[in-house]
Amino acid sequence: MENAAPALDRAGQALYRQLYEYFIREIRTGRLAAGEKLPSRRRLAADAGVSVNTVDTAYGMLAAEGYVEARPRSGYVVCRLEARPAAPARRAPPPAPPRAAAPRWRFNFATSTIDTGLFPFKTWRRIQRDVLAQDPSLLNPGPRMGDENLRAAIAVHLHEYRGAVCTPEQVVIGAGIEYLAGLLAQMFRAETFAVEDPGYSRTARILANAGAQAAFVPVDSQGMDADALAASGARLAYVTPSHQFPTGVTMPAARRYELLRWAAAAPERWIIEDDYDSEFRFDSRPLPCLQGLDEAGRVIYIGTFSKSVAPAIRVAYMVLPAGLLGRWQAMYGSYSCPVSRMEQQTLCRFMESGAFARHLARLRIAYRRRRDALVQALHRRLGGAVRVYGAHTGLHLLAALPGAPGEKALVEAAAARGVHCTALGDYRQGPVPADAPDAAVPAAVLGYAGLSEGQIGPAVDALADAWGAWLPGAGG
Amino acid sequence: MENAAPALDRAGQALYRQLYEYFIREIRTGRLAAGEKLPSRRRLAADAGVSVNTVDTAYGMLAAEGYVEARPRSGYVVCRLEARPAAPARRAPPPAPPRAAAPRWRFNFATSTIDTGLFPFKTWRRIQRDVLAQDPSLLNPGPRMGDENLRAAIAVHLHEYRGAVCTPEQVVIGAGIEYLAGLLAQMFRAETFAVEDPGYSRTARILANAGAQAAFVPVDSQGMDADALAASGARLAYVTPSHQFPTGVTMPAARRYELLRWAAAAPERWIIEDDYDSEFRFDSRPLPCLQGLDEAGRVIYIGTFSKSVAPAIRVAYMVLPAGLLGRWQAMYGSYSCPVSRMEQQTLCRFMESGAFARHLARLRIAYRRRRDALVQALHRRLGGAVRVYGAHTGLHLLAALPGAPGEKALVEAAAARGVHCTALGDYRQGPVPADAPDAAVPAAVLGYAGLSEGQIGPAVDALADAWGAWLPGAGG
Repeated sequence: MENAAPALDRAGQALYRQLYEYFIREIRTGRLAAGEKLPSRRRLAADAGVSVNTVDTAYGMLAAEGYVEARPRSGYVVCRLEARPAAPARRAPPPAPPRAAAPRWRFNFATSTIDTGLFPFKTWRRIQRDVLAQDPSLLNPGPRMGDENLRAAIAVHLHEYRGAVCTPEQVVIGAGIEYLAGLLAQMFRAETFAVEDPGYSRTARILANAGAQAAFVPVDSQGMDADALAASGARLAYVTPSHQFPTGVTMPAARRYELLRWAAAAPERWIIEDDYDSEFRFDSRPLPCLQGLDEAGRVIYIGTFSKSVAPAIRVAYMVLPAGLLGRWQAMYGSYSCPVSRMEQQTLCRFMESGAFARHLARLRIAYRRRRDALVQALHRRLGGAVRVYGAHTGLHLLAALPGAPGEKALVEAAAARGVHCTALGDYRQGPVPADAPDAAVPAAVLGYAGLSEGQIGPAVDALADAWGAWLPGAGG
Repeated sequence: MENAAPALDRAGQALYRQLYEYFIREIRTGRLAAGEKLPSRRRLAADAGVSVNTVDTAYGMLAAEGYVEARPRSGYVVCRLEARPAAPARRAPPPAPPRAAAPRWRFNFATSTIDTGLFPFKTWRRIQRDVLAQDPSLLNPGPRMGDENLRAAIAVHLHEYRGAVCTPEQVVIGAGIEYLAGLLAQMFRAETFAVEDPGYSRTARILANAGAQAAFVPVDSQGMDADALAASGARLAYVTPSHQFPTGVTMPAARRYELLRWAAAAPERWIIEDDYDSEFRFDSRPLPCLQGLDEAGRVIYIGTFSKSVAPAIRVAYMVLPAGLLGRWQAMYGSYSCPVSRMEQQTLCRFMESGAFARHLARLRIAYRRRRDALVQALHRRLGGAVRVYGAHTGLHLLAALPGAPGEKALVEAAAARGVHCTALGDYRQGPVPADAPDAAVPAAVLGYAGLSEGQIGPAVDALADAWGAWLPGAGG
């Protein structure tokens, strides 16, 4: 075959690669047909002004990919390719998806952030460094349900802080609550899950993605309505008893036993207890979790280190009842643990050394002061017109303002003053009942973990400016 | 109410907690009935020999949980509890599940491990330390598809090393290939996926867990059989074209175009390209991936840093075709990225600084030497009786021994000499066809990334001892 030497761009890509791509174009467009020979290595090297090694590399790639094949004494010959797929014009690169909304809020009452100033950077870095230096085997795959020592540390922590009763073998490590909830949703794909309304919209999304059904069950002043749960036909109930999200309700004992009785009353009924921010109880010691009261083995407990360490450390955990371990093993026993072992081990040493307990104690003091500052400032600036709910535990509260014209107005007026918050109604999942209390009394959800203590006063000043017209006697 | 003071164990749990649990027992067993009053704070403090503060804490917990309520002038009164659930005896803690099998192999040819001695500990630790020191905001939640700079670094890497064509907006970060494949399986739950046979058993497991169907399609000497794919009725094909797992076949260009043509020939057909160890190509430059040849936008590319950095760093990624971004966003747009941001940022700086490229170059040299040592030792010790397949790329190869009585015998004889390897047939997914080549010629899968260069010779000596009886002229 005689062929003009390809024009190579000496300032461009590697020369072997330009040669390789040149021949692919020639073959794909049919200018080099099946059975034709490529130029000899030396000829092409001379014509193109490159080394023979460069040609060898390009030809080797073409041969390895099956564009050409080496024939004894003939050199390389073009292979027969199947007809190419009908090629629509290559789509333009897709437009960038909308960025995560990141307006520069003056004050952000989001429920998902923490104050990074409280993080024990020095301790964490020291442990992290030691972990990697001391055990290179951590680079290789670890146990599939999570590293054993971390699972043991979590079992101890849950017993001490949450009154949970479990062995390390029941603990599964996952990359965030969404990951674990997603696997549970698959496990019970054929079933209906009762979910709290209002509640986490992500739970309904996860269920829908797995093909499971969600039944929205109203939350009253004690948490998920047990009669409505019984009437829903659901086999699983996904609840947040410590600090219902977003209403802040703590489920009292009577309701807890009602739920446990519901679960025990029929086979294959399970309660999923999402205990997302339970370490932060301010007005009494932390309450035992539902799992700790469950004697029938029907509670699946889920927790996370998002609030107690950091949201960006994607470590969550689940306690499976003994009756589900075999089923878990059958479905997920071959899955690798999705959390980096270095982070598992850093966290484990953080817990075992006592640093976690000290950190939690410090966090509780700091967050309690913020809670106090927030509640006091709301009452001082908004007077008796504001009602505060759900402030005894967790890292957010509800501020309801009966005089406001609606929740949208509350949130928008705050945003106009540079304050971000969400409305209770934003978390409503099913249709809004005509007599929904949150429809009657507009309420804002205020997460305060991301604001420093010093920001709380000015943030509430801004809220008071935003909402002042709706206070009694404001003459608005 | 008159009541004997509870007997407290001064060496046991915190006193407030013992009091709290004492009263829960009294209430749950009915010894304290609804409506009865608790002892006054001062009386109980005096009787039990504890401080009033301790009593307050215990009573506060009981009240917060709804066991008792405070009544003005009456102190605390026991609440009415719903009947408790019928309580079967608490299950004993479940037995510990079988540990990950960890016999002390002399030589381990597993395909999942790497040689940790090659890891750039110093560089990684330095970057890790700097990342955390320089940007505390990394503790808070990041973009849901992954940090933007990491996605950009991956897009550049894929273009340079794999010939992929994509924008950073098409890249999704996930916690391992299983995580990403699981989300895809849910996305196409109603469909049938063609999977390679033999192939990764985890793929079939992930599909079954999501409720999707798997059609097992045979692998021939060029990869997935395109005619069998077309006949399978599948809408999705899950393939490993660079280095088919476990046969080691590299799919030639003609077969690649056949697959692309299949995908483009009907709406809603997609190819999932799992490029799990593609950075390691020894006998020519790395081959462009199927995604880079796809002009119809039908290839979903999945890769991982398990082999190129470490298995324990659970970072994988996916390149979505533009036509699937909207659907992804609708299903998973509210999911948090499951990978720790600190690890995302450490990896990102590792890539951006050029350290990753240097590390890959070192790995390729080291692994090529091991591959060479392994192939040479196999030929030297087993002579012409052994056939080696799939050694040009990736981190494992196939050693077939026609004279062996079967694969089970191959693996067991090796195990008896302290050598761990798996059989090709272990990865067979569907029924074994009578004329399956791997049934006719017993073959072992030898992963060599976890063995040092110096271990290769002795490991093959052990294999030769194990398999020597089946060599021609061995007189066995």
